[in-house]
Amino acid sequence: MRRWNGWGDETFNLALPKEGKGFLTERIGIGQPLADAALQDVCDKVPESRLPASSGSALGGLVDTSPEARVRHARGQSLADWLAMRSGEFGVFPDGVARPRSGQDVQTLLRFARENNVHLIPYGGGTSVAGHINPLAVDKPVLTVDMGEMNQLTDLDTESQIATFGAGTPGPLVESQLRAHGYTLGHFPQSFELSTIGGWVASRSSGQQSLRYGRIEQLFAGGRVETLLGTLNLPTIPASSAGPDIREVILGSEGRLGVITEVKVRVSRLPEQESFHVVFFPDWEQARAACQQLVQNRTQLSMLRLSNAVETETQLALAGHPRLIALLERYLSLRGASAAKCMMTFGLTGSRRQCKSALAEARQVCAEFGGVYTGTHLGAKWAEKRFTMPYLREALWELGYAVDTLETATDWDNVDNLLGLMENSLRHGLEDEGESVHVFTHLSHFYGQGCSIYTTYVFRVADTYEKTLSRWMSLKHSTSELIVANRGTISHQHGVGKDHAPYLPIEKGELGMLAIRSLCNTFDPDSLLNPGTLVD
Amino acid sequence: MRRWNGWGDETFNLALPKEGKGFLTERIGIGQPLADAALQDVCDKVPESRLPASSGSALGGLVDTSPEARVRHARGQSLADWLAMRSGEFGVFPDGVARPRSGQDVQTLLRFARENNVHLIPYGGGTSVAGHINPLAVDKPVLTVDMGEMNQLTDLDTESQIATFGAGTPGPLVESQLRAHGYTLGHFPQSFELSTIGGWVASRSSGQQSLRYGRIEQLFAGGRVETLLGTLNLPTIPASSAGPDIREVILGSEGRLGVITEVKVRVSRLPEQESFHVVFFPDWEQARAACQQLVQNRTQLSMLRLSNAVETETQLALAGHPRLIALLERYLSLRGASAAKCMMTFGLTGSRRQCKSALAEARQVCAEFGGVYTGTHLGAKWAEKRFTMPYLREALWELGYAVDTLETATDWDNVDNLLGLMENSLRHGLEDEGESVHVFTHLSHFYGQGCSIYTTYVFRVADTYEKTLSRWMSLKHSTSELIVANRGTISHQHGVGKDHAPYLPIEKGELGMLAIRSLCNTFDPDSLLNPGTLVD
Repeated sequence: MRRWNGWGDETFNLALPKEGKGFLTERIGIGQPLADAALQDVCDKVPESRLPASSGSALGGLVDTSPEARVRHARGQSLADWLAMRSGEFGVFPDGVARPRSGQDVQTLLRFARENNVHLIPYGGGTSVAGHINPLAVDKPVLTVDMGEMNQLTDLDTESQIATFGAGTPGPLVESQLRAHGYTLGHFPQSFELSTIGGWVASRSSGQQSLRYGRIEQLFAGGRVETLLGTLNLPTIPASSAGPDIREVILGSEGRLGVITEVKVRVSRLPEQESFHVVFFPDWEQARAACQQLVQNRTQLSMLRLSNAVETETQLALAGHPRLIALLERYLSLRGASAAKCMMTFGLTGSRRQCKSALAEARQVCAEFGGVYTGTHLGAKWAEKRFTMPYLREALWELGYAVDTLETATDWDNVDNLLGLMENSLRHGLEDEGESVHVFTHLSHFYGQGCSIYTTYVFRVADTYEKTLSRWMSLKHSTSELIVANRGTISHQHGVGKDHAPYLPIEKGELGMLAIRSLCNTFDPDSLLNPGTLVD
Repeated sequence: MRRWNGWGDETFNLALPKEGKGFLTERIGIGQPLADAALQDVCDKVPESRLPASSGSALGGLVDTSPEARVRHARGQSLADWLAMRSGEFGVFPDGVARPRSGQDVQTLLRFARENNVHLIPYGGGTSVAGHINPLAVDKPVLTVDMGEMNQLTDLDTESQIATFGAGTPGPLVESQLRAHGYTLGHFPQSFELSTIGGWVASRSSGQQSLRYGRIEQLFAGGRVETLLGTLNLPTIPASSAGPDIREVILGSEGRLGVITEVKVRVSRLPEQESFHVVFFPDWEQARAACQQLVQNRTQLSMLRLSNAVETETQLALAGHPRLIALLERYLSLRGASAAKCMMTFGLTGSRRQCKSALAEARQVCAEFGGVYTGTHLGAKWAEKRFTMPYLREALWELGYAVDTLETATDWDNVDNLLGLMENSLRHGLEDEGESVHVFTHLSHFYGQGCSIYTTYVFRVADTYEKTLSRWMSLKHSTSELIVANRGTISHQHGVGKDHAPYLPIEKGELGMLAIRSLCNTFDPDSLLNPGTLVD
C-alpha cells in the first residue's frame, strides 16, 4: 500500500549503505531523527467536512469524506509536505475526495462546485513537489478530485501512433498497457511510479529520455478537458499554423482552467535496442563541453546526464561496494580522471544502426574532451535504480537528514554561472545556524540552447519540525530568488504550484502574467479551480 | 525591384518549357490570358489618405502616404490578391505605410493608433496567402506597419546558439548574416526569398527542412513584442514547466496581440554535409508507407517530400529535357516504377557519420517498399529550384492559367482519405462550367503522427477577372470546408489570416476560440490591431 506520509510503496525501502552514512557524517555531522506522527492521530485531528449536506445525494456517491481519504489527499511531496506529514501538523485538509469515473462525472462535480461555491483541486498521483494539490485555508469547502479511477488505455491508433488514456493513468499502467501492444510512450519522470499522464500534462513534465521522446509538450497530442463552461476538445493534428495552439494553453495550466480527463499521446514502437553508457571526465569544464557538443551536434542519444564532481563523489560513496569503487577509481585516475572527475551517463535507444552510429559519435566526442568510457555496467545500474531515488528521502530521514532538490534550466552561456550561484547559496544558506549543507548537481534534459540544472541539498533536521521547516524555507526562498533573477526558469520540470507562484511574475513579466490571468478569468471567473496555484 | 503585382523580383522569370504547355493544354485546354493593369493606373485610383492631418508631425516622418507605397502594401499573395493586382481592382488600400526603425518607433505608432482610433497592420514580407495583411473596408484609417527597416542580426550567442534579429529580416538576410559566422537557422519556407522572420513567428511558418531544424515553433526562442499595453519581453529559456508558454501565445498571433519587433532564434552550426536524394516507388500505397516508416523510425533525415503520381508526372513534364526524362522513365519502368510511379525526395544534413548512417537506413526502408533509388542528381535540381516555384504562377498566368495550392495536415490514419476528398473536390469543382481542373499533391513536413498534404490546382482563367475570382472562391471554399470537416487543420503552414478565419471555429471549437478571443480582448480591447485576421 502507498505510504500515507512519504514516498511510494510501504513495502519498499532503499537502504543506505554504511559508507553512505559515514560520508554524510563527515560532511554535515551526525543526524538526529525526529519522531513521526501516527496516521490515526492525524485522522483524529481532521475536522468535520464543510461540504453541503446535500452533496452525498447530489454527487451520487462520488465523494468520500472519510478522515483517512482526506489525510491522504492533503499533501504532495515537497519537503514542506513531508515535514507536515511526518509531524502530523497538516494544517488544512480537503473537505472530501471525489473519484470520478468519466468526463460526465467530472462535469457533475464542476456543476456542483459552481452551484455550491466549492473549490475543486484536480489530483493525479499527488507527487507534486510545488504545492499543486494542497488545499488553501479558505472559508469555502474544498473538494479534491482524484482521477485515479480513469486509468485505462481506451484507444490505440497504430497508424498514427496515438494512444488515448484516462487522465488518471499512472506511469507504470501507461507503459504496461502500451507494451502489451508493442508500444511505449517513453515518458519517464523520476516520479514515474506514482505520477499520472494527466498530471504530466497539467504540470509540463519532462522525462529522463526526453532527448529521444520529447517533453510532455511534444508527446501530448490532444484530448479532453472538462471546464466550468463545458467540454474543451483538443483534436489531434500533427502540426498546425492555425493560430495559437490551445494544447499549449492546457499544458502547464495546473488545474486552473479545467480538469483534464482524457489524454491522447504520441507513442512509439518499442525500440530494437536500448543501452546506457557511462563516461568519466577529468573535470567539469571538459565534461560540460562534451555534453554541449553532443547535443548541438544532434547526436541521436535518448538520454544524457552529467553529475558534477561532488555528485559523482557522493553517488560513488552512496553506492556501497567500496572495493569495486576503489578499483574503478584507480583505473580512472590512471586515465586522468581523479579527484575532480565528473560522471556522464548517456542512453542509446532506437534501431541497431542508429545506436551503433550514435555510440561511435558519442565516444568520439567524449574522447576529444578527455572522457574515459567505461561501458554499460554503471549505466545498467542507473537504469535499474532510475525510479527509486525518491525512496532515498525515507532512508536519509531515518538518519536525521532532510534532502530536497531545486531545478531550473538556462542557456548554455549561463549554466556555469547559475549553477555556481545556486550551489553557493545552498551551501552557505544555514551558516548563521552553524549548519553545513551538502550540495551537489547534475545537468540533464539537454537542448541546443542550454540544459536543466538539478541541484540536490542535504541538511540535518533541527530539533523541532518548525525549525526544520524554517531551514528549508530559507534555503528554498533565497535560492529561488537567485534563479529567477539570473535567467533561470523557476521550474524546468516540476511546475509552479503554490510554492513557485511568487517567483513566476519575474519570469513571465507583467504582460505574460496578464495573458495567463486572462485565460484563468475567462474559464473560471470565480476562481473555483485550484486557486492559489500558478497565479495567486 | 520587387514586382508590384505578383511574386518576386521583376528581373527573374521562370520559363515554362514547351512540353509543359502541351501537357496543360491536353489536360485542361488552351488558356486565354487576361490583360494586366498598369501600376500608374492603379496609383491614380488610390483615394486620399484618411490619416489625421497631425500624423505627419506626430509620427516624425515614419509614415509614407504616397499612392505607390499604399498600392504595394495593399495585398499579399493569395490568388484573390493576385487577381486584384492583375486587374487593378484593389478595392481597399491602407491609408499609409509606416517604416519603424526600432521598438520605440513601434510604440510611437501604437500610441498614435490608440489616440486616433487607427487600425494597425503589421507587415513583414507581404507574402501571406491567407489575407493576413489586407486592410478591411472600414470607416477607420488603416496604417500598415512595414517592418522592413528592422532587418539586422543584432546579436549572436554562439555558446547558446541564439541569434537575435530585427523582426523584418527576410530569409536571405537571415541566412547570409548567420552564414558569415558559420551558422544557419535552417528555416526554408517556399516564401523564403521575401518572407521575414517576424512573419514566420506571427503565422507559425514551417520550412522545407523542418524534419531537422523544426518548425518556427521550435526555432523561436523569445524576443520582444510591442503591445498597446507596453512591451512584452519573452526571455530565452531552453524549456520550462512554469505554466503556459507565452511564446506559444505569440506564435500564430498574426498581429492581433501586438507587433513582433525582435526575434531570438535557435541556430545551428553549418552542417558538415548536405545532400538531397530521389527515389521512385511503383505506386502511392508503397511510397506513402515508406515515408511513414522512415519518420516513425526517427531516421535522421532533414527533409522528406512525396509527390503523388499526377504530381510526379506533371513535374517530369514541366521539367523540359524530354529525352533525358524518357530515358529515366524507361529505366524506372524496368525496375517496376511506371505509370503510377511516385517520386520521393529526401534530404540528409549533418555530420558525415550521421548522413552515412541515415542514407543506409533510408535506402533500406525504401527498398523494402519497392523504391528505386536514383541518387542525388534530381535532388540537386530540387534544391536549386526550391524557392523559385512561386515564379511559376507568373509563367502560367501568361498562358491564361491560374494556379493555387491548398494545404493541411492530418493524422496518418486519415491521410489517404483527406487527400482523396481534397483532390476530388478540386478536380470536379468547376464541372458545372464545363471546366477541367488539373490537380496534384505532395506530402511534406512529416511527423510520427501524420503529415501535411499540399495540393496544387491549375485551372483556366475565365473571360473576366470577376468570373475567374468566383471560380477560385468556389474551389477554395468547398475544399476548405471539407478539410476542417474531415480532421484536417485549416492550415499547416500558411496561417489563418482573413481568408481562413471562417473555418477556424470548427478546428478550435467554441472554447478554443474563446481562449484566443480572451487574449485578443485583453491585449487589444478596441480591436485596433489587424482586426478580421485570425478571429473576426
